[in-house]
Amino acid sequence: MALDSPTASPFSVFAKARIVITGGLGFIGSALAARLVALGGDVLLIDSLAPNYGGNWFNIAPIRDRVRVEIADIRDTARLKPLLSGCDHLFNLAGQTSHLDSMTDPVTDLEINCLAQLTLLEACRAVCPDATIVFASTRQIYGRPEYLPVDERHPIHPVDVNGVNKMAGEAYHILYRDVYGMKATALRLTNTYGPRMRIKDARQTFVGVWLRCMLEGKPFEVWGGAQKRVFTYVDDAVEAFLYAAINEEAKGKVFNLGGEGAVTLNELAAVLVAVNGSGTYANHEFPAERRRIDIGDYYADDALFRRVTGWRPAVPLATGLERSLAFFRENLAHYV
Amino acid sequence: MALDSPTASPFSVFAKARIVITGGLGFIGSALAARLVALGGDVLLIDSLAPNYGGNWFNIAPIRDRVRVEIADIRDTARLKPLLSGCDHLFNLAGQTSHLDSMTDPVTDLEINCLAQLTLLEACRAVCPDATIVFASTRQIYGRPEYLPVDERHPIHPVDVNGVNKMAGEAYHILYRDVYGMKATALRLTNTYGPRMRIKDARQTFVGVWLRCMLEGKPFEVWGGAQKRVFTYVDDAVEAFLYAAINEEAKGKVFNLGGEGAVTLNELAAVLVAVNGSGTYANHEFPAERRRIDIGDYYADDALFRRVTGWRPAVPLATGLERSLAFFRENLAHYV
Repeated sequence: MALDSPTASPFSVFAKARIVITGGLGFIGSALAARLVALGGDVLLIDSLAPNYGGNWFNIAPIRDRVRVEIADIRDTARLKPLLSGCDHLFNLAGQTSHLDSMTDPVTDLEINCLAQLTLLEACRAVCPDATIVFASTRQIYGRPEYLPVDERHPIHPVDVNGVNKMAGEAYHILYRDVYGMKATALRLTNTYGPRMRIKDARQTFVGVWLRCMLEGKPFEVWGGAQKRVFTYVDDAVEAFLYAAINEEAKGKVFNLGGEGAVTLNELAAVLVAVNGSGTYANHEFPAERRRIDIGDYYADDALFRRVTGWRPAVPLATGLERSLAFFRENLAHYV
Repeated sequence: MALDSPTASPFSVFAKARIVITGGLGFIGSALAARLVALGGDVLLIDSLAPNYGGNWFNIAPIRDRVRVEIADIRDTARLKPLLSGCDHLFNLAGQTSHLDSMTDPVTDLEINCLAQLTLLEACRAVCPDATIVFASTRQIYGRPEYLPVDERHPIHPVDVNGVNKMAGEAYHILYRDVYGMKATALRLTNTYGPRMRIKDARQTFVGVWLRCMLEGKPFEVWGGAQKRVFTYVDDAVEAFLYAAINEEAKGKVFNLGGEGAVTLNELAAVLVAVNGSGTYANHEFPAERRRIDIGDYYADDALFRRVTGWRPAVPLATGLERSLAFFRENLAHYV
């Protein structure tokens, strides 16, 4: 089919393009890498493989011989700078994602999500000022919603150190567009899920832990249950990163990324059990420590991104969960 | 008069209280120190005396024997922590203030305005969790106003690295209130002026350079001229810091600080020449480099702070400028 050939796609621009993905061995980074390899891109993955993060060699097993990989920490600017030379597209996904870790070790979170973003942009300014840059931001920076759905004009009120640092990391990107004309865009992601996500713990999202429990035949725990969320299947998130990179109007802008529609955690749990064909879960009240940094209902208004880029989520929740379970059923040993 | 005695004032709480001021040898810090000494406070000033900042030994000449001074960089957390032990009130004014410097050396700005604020709060959490904390934030984080006057709900859109880092520094303070119950308040200052301000260059505000030109009998330069601003006389700013510290409702909140009302730079220039009795200035268009980070008109809506605390600016612009000129006329050698 013509649409499958790189030249007929809006993404043909990635063929032979020099692409760098930070956090490239991670959940979303590796899925993005696979897509870009399929589009004919010349892909370099940078990842620290730090233990509590999403990086995992197995994530790129199917494309291992078609990408270059550098194990490097994005805080190590001296090493990064030559790697970015000649870069056409930077997908900047490396980050500390755990809200709880950001409270117990706030300085590490700052170094990765704040300082390293600034030095990375400075490096780009020096060696690849014309590269498109898409930054993986987070809905976490809004804090507890004042209204729903949350659009991009919603006040910013981070509820943890991670939120503050991601807010700053995002702001540097937009600033470097405003001041230096760099082609940066930020996507505020919400709960992204799918094959290759971290399921060892809840450091990416609680969905990982739920999936793991299902696969191990254990009941999973639903904290709260009535709170609403949106979920983005990883392939839809990948598509969003590609759209953000190629769209001129998206430069210098921040966009929410959502999904199909809001569901409660209880509804999500029920769908998960249904597609798995079995499984149980228990509802629990939040302990005080978690309640302090929980944000209640959250769902995004992503109409702006849809309008500007034409992006639409394509994978329904049940399908996405089914694919996730199938992947992990086959590859569980590589993720636990 | 009874109102002059510490015990009759709303500020009697500062008598014998252990007070720490970061940036204590600076413009606002030293004025705050003088006021707190007069109120009977036990005052410790921390200042790095870094060359391009506001610290100046002469600023505390009148109170030198009534305060303790530690020359320390707020980035040096190990040194700061014991100094904060037992602190009742922390006025957190140390910062990198130059917008242009933040673009040429973004990492230093981040270390001071972002990282050091986080480690300072962590130190407070460890050794003085019950201290009141007032953080000197800035209107810079709003960026170019979308509407005027700018209230605290105005979207945040920093236009330089300094703005991003101050935004993060402020957000840590509010976060540490939300999560740990620490008694932090942030004041978004606008153009504060008065005796002891930095007049060597425009690193605090352009008003410093204007004052210096007046005193040296040189014409000063008005870039643009039609743009509106508000100005806060330093004694009014000091009063605002005291109100912010003692007010329970102010905790965990961010407030604009304004002044009498908006004036154009041309109006300000005319008042300055009038109170000086002589002087000239020339209007210039912004060069491209400055225009990129200029924000146009800005004036704050500070109704929220006035309502919550009862604060009012007391010193009219002409009076404030007159006092500033008088001070620098007498002490110019210590400031140029």
